[in-house]
Amino acid sequence: MGEATIYKDGDLELRGIVERPREPNGRAILVVHEAPGLGDNARRRTSLLAELGYVALAADLYGGGRTYGGSEATQQMDALRADPAVLRRRVSAGLDALTELAGVPPEQCAAVGYCFGGLAVLELARGGAPVAGIVSFHGLLRSSAPAKKGEVRARILACTGAKDPLVPLEDVTAFQEEMDAAAADWQLIVYGRALHSFTNRNVAGGADPRMDYDPSADRQSWAAALLFLEETFSA
Amino acid sequence: MGEATIYKDGDLELRGIVERPREPNGRAILVVHEAPGLGDNARRRTSLLAELGYVALAADLYGGGRTYGGSEATQQMDALRADPAVLRRRVSAGLDALTELAGVPPEQCAAVGYCFGGLAVLELARGGAPVAGIVSFHGLLRSSAPAKKGEVRARILACTGAKDPLVPLEDVTAFQEEMDAAAADWQLIVYGRALHSFTNRNVAGGADPRMDYDPSADRQSWAAALLFLEETFSA
Repeated sequence: MGEATIYKDGDLELRGIVERPREPNGRAILVVHEAPGLGDNARRRTSLLAELGYVALAADLYGGGRTYGGSEATQQMDALRADPAVLRRRVSAGLDALTELAGVPPEQCAAVGYCFGGLAVLELARGGAPVAGIVSFHGLLRSSAPAKKGEVRARILACTGAKDPLVPLEDVTAFQEEMDAAAADWQLIVYGRALHSFTNRNVAGGADPRMDYDPSADRQSWAAALLFLEETFSA
Repeated sequence: MGEATIYKDGDLELRGIVERPREPNGRAILVVHEAPGLGDNARRRTSLLAELGYVALAADLYGGGRTYGGSEATQQMDALRADPAVLRRRVSAGLDALTELAGVPPEQCAAVGYCFGGLAVLELARGGAPVAGIVSFHGLLRSSAPAKKGEVRARILACTGAKDPLVPLEDVTAFQEEMDAAAADWQLIVYGRALHSFTNRNVAGGADPRMDYDPSADRQSWAAALLFLEETFSA
């Protein structure tokens, strides 16, 4: 069920969880958590990816594997969002840990993220990380440090819900403009009826009207991501 | 290799091609051609769908199965585009033929279309046709008769290329607004580097710089469409 692994960003100790496949396919994937920190959804995806042959590391962006509720989670997220350079370094630390754990170069790695993690992996791409692919699920699409032309090296897939109040249509449109201007290799999927957190079973019927699990969008986005990753690694 | 079938829209004789599966799955799909008329791409998709168990009919929007080149094709397309009511009736005639050939109600049917056909099947959805699903591949997304709230009954998947000069970003954004305002059940996939006609092998390296075959966008959009259809019919 995964093994805790400690890695560092400067002096900060981060506590991720690594899952190793029975039959490794030579590729590795970083999984980045939502605003509350490393929890069930990221762990579940990490297991699923390991079952498919990927060495998978559930990253920790906060330190000590700590998780937060409500406004504390938002504060933690906002502190990192406010400085894209720090956020990129924090995610890169996870990528470095992954390449070491898996014994593969970053070119044989991808990163997938959810909500805040979706933003975080996009920042990794914007920063020019040499990973093969990036998948963002209901991630925030707007950055204070947009991608510059020619600097994005990873292929990008972003999956978003049209009813996600955290990702309004203007951000979806701006993302397309940003990626196009950056000459990135990108894809976008919009699920018309999906709210925020559509991949997360734990929020189903939750109290927060901004988010809900959407089985169809979850199933289709996961299938799209797996095909995208497979194709990206085979290219 | 398919069988020619004659059906009518009023007095106009249309000449489609039907493909029957060895093991019918009880569902049927209408395939609608590009501006030049019923050609290789639509035929190929019709065969592929029949292999999967669908009764599939390659529709004819022009009459007599006629095909056109260059500006004549554009004229034929524009004549139908100019009157959404006529276009919807023309596509509906194909749907009626399909339900009869397959012996299934429209609720067990879907329609997929390419380029002009992609627009045509979206018009079918906008007109409230009781089909289960609609898939538009590099179809024109703008209509002179936008969908009205509550009138779209089909689930919709639209796949488009960000580099398609016939479908600029403003049309992609307007489509999302239209579908959302109509309260439709819709999805949109944007392939960042794809030009027009990205599913069509025959245009690869063609003389027209607006269009080109894109193997990745073709593979991924086809997989997305098949999953979408399967899920739509199982709902």
